[in-house]
Amino acid sequence: MAGVSADPNKLGSIIFTNMIENRKKGILKAPVYALNPARNRIGEHPCYPSIDALPEVPELLIIAVPEAQTLSLIKAAAKAGVEAAVMITGGYAEIGKGDVEREIGKVAAKHGMRILGPNTIGLVDMWSGVDSLFLRPTKILPDGSQVVSMRKPLKGEVAVITQSGHLGEVVAEELAANGVGVRAIVGTGNQLDVSVEDVIEHFAGDRHTRVISVYLEGLRDGRRFMEAVARAVRRKPLVVFKVGKTGVGARAALTHTASLVGNYEVYQAALRQAGAIEARGFQELVDLSVSLLMLPLTKGRRLAIVTNAGGVGAIAADEAANTGLKVEPLQDGARRKILAMFAGEAFVSNASLGNPVDLTASVTSDQLVKTVEVVAARPEYDLLLVLPTHHAPGMEYDVAEKLSGVIKRSGKAIACCVIGNSELANRIHMEFMSKGIPGFPTPERAVRALAVAPEYAAAKKASWDSSVLHGPSRRFDGKTGPLRQKEVSRLLRSYGIAEPRSVIVEHAKDLRKLESIGFPVACKLLSPGVPHKTELGGVVLDVGNPAEAERAFVRFQRIAAREHARFDGMLAQEMVERSVELLLGGMRDPTFGPIVLLGLGGVYTELLREYLLAVSPITAKEARRMLIGETLAKALGGYRGGPRVSVGRLCEVASAFSRIMVDNPSIEQMELNPLVVTRNRILAVDTRVMLRRG
Amino acid sequence: MAGVSADPNKLGSIIFTNMIENRKKGILKAPVYALNPARNRIGEHPCYPSIDALPEVPELLIIAVPEAQTLSLIKAAAKAGVEAAVMITGGYAEIGKGDVEREIGKVAAKHGMRILGPNTIGLVDMWSGVDSLFLRPTKILPDGSQVVSMRKPLKGEVAVITQSGHLGEVVAEELAANGVGVRAIVGTGNQLDVSVEDVIEHFAGDRHTRVISVYLEGLRDGRRFMEAVARAVRRKPLVVFKVGKTGVGARAALTHTASLVGNYEVYQAALRQAGAIEARGFQELVDLSVSLLMLPLTKGRRLAIVTNAGGVGAIAADEAANTGLKVEPLQDGARRKILAMFAGEAFVSNASLGNPVDLTASVTSDQLVKTVEVVAARPEYDLLLVLPTHHAPGMEYDVAEKLSGVIKRSGKAIACCVIGNSELANRIHMEFMSKGIPGFPTPERAVRALAVAPEYAAAKKASWDSSVLHGPSRRFDGKTGPLRQKEVSRLLRSYGIAEPRSVIVEHAKDLRKLESIGFPVACKLLSPGVPHKTELGGVVLDVGNPAEAERAFVRFQRIAAREHARFDGMLAQEMVERSVELLLGGMRDPTFGPIVLLGLGGVYTELLREYLLAVSPITAKEARRMLIGETLAKALGGYRGGPRVSVGRLCEVASAFSRIMVDNPSIEQMELNPLVVTRNRILAVDTRVMLRRG
Repeated sequence: MAGVSADPNKLGSIIFTNMIENRKKGILKAPVYALNPARNRIGEHPCYPSIDALPEVPELLIIAVPEAQTLSLIKAAAKAGVEAAVMITGGYAEIGKGDVEREIGKVAAKHGMRILGPNTIGLVDMWSGVDSLFLRPTKILPDGSQVVSMRKPLKGEVAVITQSGHLGEVVAEELAANGVGVRAIVGTGNQLDVSVEDVIEHFAGDRHTRVISVYLEGLRDGRRFMEAVARAVRRKPLVVFKVGKTGVGARAALTHTASLVGNYEVYQAALRQAGAIEARGFQELVDLSVSLLMLPLTKGRRLAIVTNAGGVGAIAADEAANTGLKVEPLQDGARRKILAMFAGEAFVSNASLGNPVDLTASVTSDQLVKTVEVVAARPEYDLLLVLPTHHAPGMEYDVAEKLSGVIKRSGKAIACCVIGNSELANRIHMEFMSKGIPGFPTPERAVRALAVAPEYAAAKKASWDSSVLHGPSRRFDGKTGPLRQKEVSRLLRSYGIAEPRSVIVEHAKDLRKLESIGFPVACKLLSPGVPHKTELGGVVLDVGNPAEAERAFVRFQRIAAREHARFDGMLAQEMVERSVELLLGGMRDPTFGPIVLLGLGGVYTELLREYLLAVSPITAKEARRMLIGETLAKALGGYRGGPRVSVGRLCEVASAFSRIMVDNPSIEQMELNPLVVTRNRILAVDTRVMLRRG
Repeated sequence: MAGVSADPNKLGSIIFTNMIENRKKGILKAPVYALNPARNRIGEHPCYPSIDALPEVPELLIIAVPEAQTLSLIKAAAKAGVEAAVMITGGYAEIGKGDVEREIGKVAAKHGMRILGPNTIGLVDMWSGVDSLFLRPTKILPDGSQVVSMRKPLKGEVAVITQSGHLGEVVAEELAANGVGVRAIVGTGNQLDVSVEDVIEHFAGDRHTRVISVYLEGLRDGRRFMEAVARAVRRKPLVVFKVGKTGVGARAALTHTASLVGNYEVYQAALRQAGAIEARGFQELVDLSVSLLMLPLTKGRRLAIVTNAGGVGAIAADEAANTGLKVEPLQDGARRKILAMFAGEAFVSNASLGNPVDLTASVTSDQLVKTVEVVAARPEYDLLLVLPTHHAPGMEYDVAEKLSGVIKRSGKAIACCVIGNSELANRIHMEFMSKGIPGFPTPERAVRALAVAPEYAAAKKASWDSSVLHGPSRRFDGKTGPLRQKEVSRLLRSYGIAEPRSVIVEHAKDLRKLESIGFPVACKLLSPGVPHKTELGGVVLDVGNPAEAERAFVRFQRIAAREHARFDGMLAQEMVERSVELLLGGMRDPTFGPIVLLGLGGVYTELLREYLLAVSPITAKEARRMLIGETLAKALGGYRGGPRVSVGRLCEVASAFSRIMVDNPSIEQMELNPLVVTRNRILAVDTRVMLRRG
């Protein structure tokens, strides 16, 4: 431990004291040494001038000294064979001093020493007792009294990984306030060496970890992150709260695709593909971690709601519809069973045995528990939300214990909601939590947390693997800028993507070539320098005879001249029946590399923003899974007289397309718009491929 | 008080005891009498056998006796001149016994007695001391100890109106837990007489009420509700949480309009038009009530964020973007001022003086307060969120008191967020609340609550008034079903809505009439029994000559015959340049009456669901206000080469259209689809008007 001083409020001293205490309590097995060349002792503990002066080579070095002293310390430690260091202090890359950080990184890498940080809270490991957290657990009020300012984390099975140390601790605090413990908290700080991906990989294989909870601000290598997440998710659930949603990556919008997609949307797509559960807010990160820890795995989305208060039941039913859960009425069998069970009881005549099952305020704890037992046993429900409002006269504290027993025995995914802000509400809530039943203070939060059970079941099946598909890479002879139509056609053909029958007319004298297609044809200006052909009059449809074709040719020559663009001739295509017009686009995201977008094509593309996004490559199966339930999928399903599109074939085209940019690193952006889907063909009617500059 | 018995756990006894206590404390000025023909005394209090036996005629009668005894009690009270009654007991319309309820209503109405309930918690009035709440404030744990199960409401200025008594009390409890009081809680129960609208009207004019907070399940008369809300909102903010979002009113979908619109969407439109603030959840109802109570009125949406922790600042910035607030960078002037103020201080060199202004964990309370003072004074911000994370070493308890002073003096709309779940976090939060600064435990909730200040400023301008526009009503000669094309044209013309030039051809021999329009024309089958003409081939566009027109005519005759529908002939219209295709629809909602919908037309109408909804009538100005920022408005703004539509003219057409169904009660549904907007005309190309059945 470097940076221990006489001032007990200094970071180094706080950390040293914590570690010594853990050692005394027997939580920490390893000895703790203080390093400080200026002192012989810190309190009762000896102080060593350097790494070399220590009685043994430590496994871990925790550094809380100013930036200027760190490099020499790291050098000495790396040489001495220290395996790992935690650099708490800031003042590096985050304020522009990246060079010092890189130098430290080089030294450590040379000797195989791993570094966590700098600029981090470091970590607390509830199993080994290593604890570099330095936020004060108590503070003094003006009247001199001492109050808790930061709850100590409890020992448990949620691994909290955070790019903001402070928020990681607050997640653990909120869990602790609900009686839930953490496996560890790890703040990755500037990620000089150890990254979020590394830590995810570690906890994926850790037997004390059951849920991984991640607070994410940004990534350097998005694809490695996806691989780490996908591997972890096969073994345990992982929930991510991504912050920094509004920043749009700087990127030249050469295609509609590029102007459509924001950086956060790519993150969302990547998280979904890798099988992470996305939390939409700070509180939800905590809620979903609790829920994933406590609920059994469940595939179905059919929810039953049992309550003794109509209002909270109605709120829950609304939220269930929002969250995509099914709230189907109680079946006659269950209804009859409940009626028989309580024949003659007054509450039953006023109860509403639908879904929600509202037993009214007159029900007793025992009657509610018995009803839950009946409903939980029904095979037509996968999820159950119980809202035992304690305000009702018949509802007592013991309802939590009795319900917990029934819930545990049922084996179903069941959550409870105790609404209200009183001591009794909190006691009942904590009783549920202590029995391993996830409890939430509002119906909305409870429903969202329940929905995560089938979400994780589906996420486990996500099969992100960037390594599966690789074709030969083309060089395009070192060209840059827009790729010529001929080469685009060759490229698409090699991936099995069809275009309409067409000819290219470079000179007016070649116009007779059009006979090979047959009139009418669609004529398009070929000029890589003219991006939006339609707006400039560079597209003429339904050209019925050679004279009209010639007029179009002459007009195109004039447009290219006016725009000071190269004239590559005229593309004449067979007229394609326009039924469903889609857009298939590809671009490179700075974090995740090649991505693919499948959306509605035509003039409303950017306006309506109906599209699916994925990190490339995707398999046809994955594309199909993503399409389910989307508005886009409805457009493909023979909507209002249009043809029913072969979704399977379309997903194959999207999959092939997604491989192009993975295979060909020199392509910067590409777009098929419109991709026209007819009764029996899928045709790239207009295409655009941009090569990388430089 | 009727229903007081020897059992202290009976509703009547609980209420009686509460009232007696309020009387003893001096909160309640009026005397309290117990009614019970079976007893002479209840404890120390005399018990009267009937209303007539009381020493004086009471102003208010609270009834907690079973349903069977209520009618005679109401009769006696009404005759004796009692002005109002609260019927606590349930067992009426909510379980199908509507007839008893109606009978009671008749008796009361005859004598001018008002009734609250039945099936309600009744009310607590924190000013007069009338209190019929009966939920137990404490319960007994198994170990015999007594804990608070329902916090008593505090006295304050939020009027809570609720259709679920339980949730009304929980709102008040949550407010009390945050140190915020209520003016009253009123549960309207079955609304035999006094409705939510009545109670809103009451608190609108009440000088002790500053915010009206409504939990709403359903309404009988939507238009009266809107009028009550609109009148209230001019004087004070009103926030509504609407539950029962998923129920779709039973309604025949004769038009796209009817199949598009759900009941909850009409509620949303009505709330917006009337100027209510909509809370999206239970917690938000509480948060927005607090925020509307404490924040000054602010028109602008420009938010500054000041924090000492990067993570919470980033979360707040994300949420601000979601909520439609502007987060623009700190201007140079402010930045220079802060730098000068803290010249030489270590924290400044690491601070990020953008927006969020992140002063880092090294900042002290005083430095943070001074920075907030500078930022709050900047005219370029309307709203300010301060996140003074108390976990940082320099942040002490007194930050709340110091910040509160600066915030109050600034006069700006400023909220605070203290994240964390510890005693200190709660103390700081409560210190803010006690000083009248709205505080929230997560950045997301704080941002949403701040956004409500400009939302209310805009809502105050909402001008719902159903009485302004009324034209002459048409009888349509008592017809039902689809209205004939000729009559539709006459109707639209009288409201100034244009159609393309057209002729109706009833017999093949009249086909020469088409010359008056000039070829090409669009030909449409006229057959009221064929709803989706396009799908069945009943529309032929671009008919270029008389021969083609004749072919279309013959084809239409065949389609009508095949569908067994009446053949009214063929409509031939001038071909209209199709630029922007809209849909303008009208229907009757069971709760709110005539509504109007303006959306994207064409085949994707139902798929994309891009539309605006309003309760009819709307003024052109209101239509324009609603369009701002909507996707639909972008489509009108000359999107990608299409014509720039005259939005002003379109809003006039929508306003005129909205009047048609208000003026003509015999129209059930109507639709202009497409309503084609060209460079200089707005034309109803296809129209459909359905008259009411029976």
